[in-house]
Amino acid sequence: MKRKGSQTSEGILFTDQYQLTMAQLYFTTGIHEKESQFDHFFRSYPDYGSHQAGYCINAGLEWAVKWMMNSRFGEEEIKHLRAQTGLTGEPLFKDDFLNWLSEYGNFEGITMFAIPEGRVVHPNVPLNVVQGPLAMAQILESSLLNKINYQTLIATKAARIKDTARGQQLIEFGLRRGQDIGVNAGVRAALIGGADFSSNVGISHSLGYPPKGTHGHSMVQVFMAMGEGELGAFRAYAELYPDDCLLLVDTINTLQSGIPNAIVVFEELRRKGHEPVGIRLDSGDLAYLSIQAAAMLDKAGFPDTKIVLSNQIDELVVWQIITQIEEEAPRFGVDPDHLIKRLVYGVGTNLITSKGAPALDGVYKLVALSNGKDWMPSIKLSESREKTHNPGSKKVWRIYDKRGKATADLLTLGEMNPAQIDEIILHHPLDHTKYRILKSEEISKAEPLLEKILDRGKLVYEFPSIEDMRSQREKDMDCLDLGIKRIVNPHIYHVSLSEELWNLKQELIGSTK
Amino acid sequence: MKRKGSQTSEGILFTDQYQLTMAQLYFTTGIHEKESQFDHFFRSYPDYGSHQAGYCINAGLEWAVKWMMNSRFGEEEIKHLRAQTGLTGEPLFKDDFLNWLSEYGNFEGITMFAIPEGRVVHPNVPLNVVQGPLAMAQILESSLLNKINYQTLIATKAARIKDTARGQQLIEFGLRRGQDIGVNAGVRAALIGGADFSSNVGISHSLGYPPKGTHGHSMVQVFMAMGEGELGAFRAYAELYPDDCLLLVDTINTLQSGIPNAIVVFEELRRKGHEPVGIRLDSGDLAYLSIQAAAMLDKAGFPDTKIVLSNQIDELVVWQIITQIEEEAPRFGVDPDHLIKRLVYGVGTNLITSKGAPALDGVYKLVALSNGKDWMPSIKLSESREKTHNPGSKKVWRIYDKRGKATADLLTLGEMNPAQIDEIILHHPLDHTKYRILKSEEISKAEPLLEKILDRGKLVYEFPSIEDMRSQREKDMDCLDLGIKRIVNPHIYHVSLSEELWNLKQELIGSTK
Repeated sequence: MKRKGSQTSEGILFTDQYQLTMAQLYFTTGIHEKESQFDHFFRSYPDYGSHQAGYCINAGLEWAVKWMMNSRFGEEEIKHLRAQTGLTGEPLFKDDFLNWLSEYGNFEGITMFAIPEGRVVHPNVPLNVVQGPLAMAQILESSLLNKINYQTLIATKAARIKDTARGQQLIEFGLRRGQDIGVNAGVRAALIGGADFSSNVGISHSLGYPPKGTHGHSMVQVFMAMGEGELGAFRAYAELYPDDCLLLVDTINTLQSGIPNAIVVFEELRRKGHEPVGIRLDSGDLAYLSIQAAAMLDKAGFPDTKIVLSNQIDELVVWQIITQIEEEAPRFGVDPDHLIKRLVYGVGTNLITSKGAPALDGVYKLVALSNGKDWMPSIKLSESREKTHNPGSKKVWRIYDKRGKATADLLTLGEMNPAQIDEIILHHPLDHTKYRILKSEEISKAEPLLEKILDRGKLVYEFPSIEDMRSQREKDMDCLDLGIKRIVNPHIYHVSLSEELWNLKQELIGSTK
Repeated sequence: MKRKGSQTSEGILFTDQYQLTMAQLYFTTGIHEKESQFDHFFRSYPDYGSHQAGYCINAGLEWAVKWMMNSRFGEEEIKHLRAQTGLTGEPLFKDDFLNWLSEYGNFEGITMFAIPEGRVVHPNVPLNVVQGPLAMAQILESSLLNKINYQTLIATKAARIKDTARGQQLIEFGLRRGQDIGVNAGVRAALIGGADFSSNVGISHSLGYPPKGTHGHSMVQVFMAMGEGELGAFRAYAELYPDDCLLLVDTINTLQSGIPNAIVVFEELRRKGHEPVGIRLDSGDLAYLSIQAAAMLDKAGFPDTKIVLSNQIDELVVWQIITQIEEEAPRFGVDPDHLIKRLVYGVGTNLITSKGAPALDGVYKLVALSNGKDWMPSIKLSESREKTHNPGSKKVWRIYDKRGKATADLLTLGEMNPAQIDEIILHHPLDHTKYRILKSEEISKAEPLLEKILDRGKLVYEFPSIEDMRSQREKDMDCLDLGIKRIVNPHIYHVSLSEELWNLKQELIGSTK
């Protein structure tokens, strides 16, 4: 079902008003079809307050590109623009501009390079390079940022939780806590970044993953209200789902009622030839309760049932739970490693909202304009030095050291291939006193990160499956030093400028001042 | 344009998997059509870390109800459920349940009461009361929470910013920072809560508000790259939009370049008979720069042009800016009151994500089941006392004192009307030692807050316009004591239980233990 008007509000008018007023200015100035280049990049890793990311996982490209390929100014959109007026009541958009938009208001002139989804990415590195007619490249900004900023933010959070959980199963639970149907994009990003499944039925279906879930407190309440109690609820559930029986044990009292009742039902199931799946803890001290639950389940002969933890989980909580289990479980006769390997994490709010850092600061900057023959670099100065972007049409290389670890991302100009140079100078993007020299014998590989996605509007790239994106993510994360993956105060990965790019940037800053 | 599969992922399958497995259990137990009642309420005000809300603004109802009226299990949905398997590969959903869903899988049996949008609301007060067949009332949970939690969160944030800004114009700028197309819901909520306009073109159009915006840095960069500089950019813009000329002045240097160039162009405009609209500041120390900008514009003869502030604005920043202006502006010969009244705020990230509190903790709890004749109250205990909900079929009253200020929200059972009672005992929801007695002579009005929206699926309510919701919000906020509206450490508004409800709750807690 679609709400009235959603076609219009999710199509090409899913943009900011100033993109349209600027586009009209380019049109009246006669530069609307001038070839331009914009870079989309983020400035800093998500900082969650008490903890910080040292890498991001790129996501959202496929949805952004599909939006581009399906969006154009049609009758409805033109009609709306024609009705807009300025403060004096005069039409804001002129007929000649609207006529041009009717005909050319689409993304068929856009050529786009991008870093594929699932890859580890870092600040100030262009995730997307957009080349094309100035007016349409400008109008693209808002939606491209919207679609890729959010998914990258969520894929990053999922990767952090998955990594801290030592690869244990992670299930996305955030439907009721996100931004309306925007949560569907979050589910996709979570699946790319590290979630194994989601509870969200529709989008899981669309993406080809089975949705996951068992039961909530209300089911137990219903049976209690009918006088059959928690045990009656568990029995009814087990009878209907004998091979998928995972019971939520905290509706009344976890240790005194929930787990003992679950064990009764698990024993009954086993007598009928079925193995129970596990229990879910959704409140209280999850570290302590999971140890007690494991002790009780072990003793009852169910040492391998899963223990699903939910309620305010994030990577810091996972870390705390694992640490406490390692310290405390032996005192209760529970093997910590075994317990940690039976845990499953259900994460709602903190994943779907990336709590603490609810937005990625991705921006879209004009870096070059064509003079008909060459790209002329462009720059915007800024009150804060870090915000001055890197100008010009650039390439992005990931440099691997002899251990096969990624040691730096390098931005270069032109056709330079770092793999073919004896000695690379890596410039700190801001501080001219900081640079690093890498000799060719220290380098095992220089890998170009940008791939061509669109060639004048034509898709020239095959979108990988989410499974392939996940493999790519795992491969990239294996190439990160542990310090970069640390969830608190991570080591800073080097993003560097080549000698030529550094010089160009200084030159442009100098000439603008 | 719609993405493939979006019909399915935004319709009735926009729910959590456990709603469906529970619904099937109710079906096999034969209680799926048992009349049940669920309350949707939030447990606590948003806490942004350094500041906290003392009230919320209710929003999202219309979108939730329209979703309900348009969502049902159709062929595509049933096909998907039929294909789902459990761990052993057997179908998870049985034919008889799916047949029932095909026929009755819609919300036509639901009766719903709700507090209207735009109203001030408080924790533990039911925003929505859902009555209907157990299985479908259960399935509704996820989407209802999704649609109302987020909009209430954002309407609340917008109200706080608008109130702190002393009613100055507030424009929503968050498209690029929110969760995919979920931002459209955020725009609607912001408009209800206090934003005057949004930059988001499509949804503004759908909702009947003109989108707002002027130009970005890239436009200035384009003219710089063409050798025409910032002044050339401003001139071109002013020529095209002589009566809507608002210039972004921080691309190069705000005080040395941007404002002087803007003044040149403003003078040219005035000579041609047009009045400039204003300038926008998007970086640096906004308080300091707005004072300097005002001084320069005043001196140049433009004392009434707007000064739009954007970049990391929230209510705390607005408060700081206003405080600093009041303290510092006179030193620069600028009248602080006049300056404060020419400010306009453009708010992106912090509004659309409700930064610091990116989710409202709204929950949906079974409070009663019908025995065919009466509602039998239901409760869920919890490890933490505050999480035990208020049972039974309740009414919600807002009690106003003699000054016309709202003094408490009162939850009652049955037909009691607080306006007709000599003396009301207001019980603290948790602490039996805390209560308050209100005599009838202290009360000016007792207002019922819940309105009937759906009667067995039929809409019996006329949705107010956003303008009407805004008026309601202003009216309700005028009835709040200043301490409740304070943006830091607000005074706690009383949400109380009637004597009967308090006794019922204690009785149920006692009988469950």
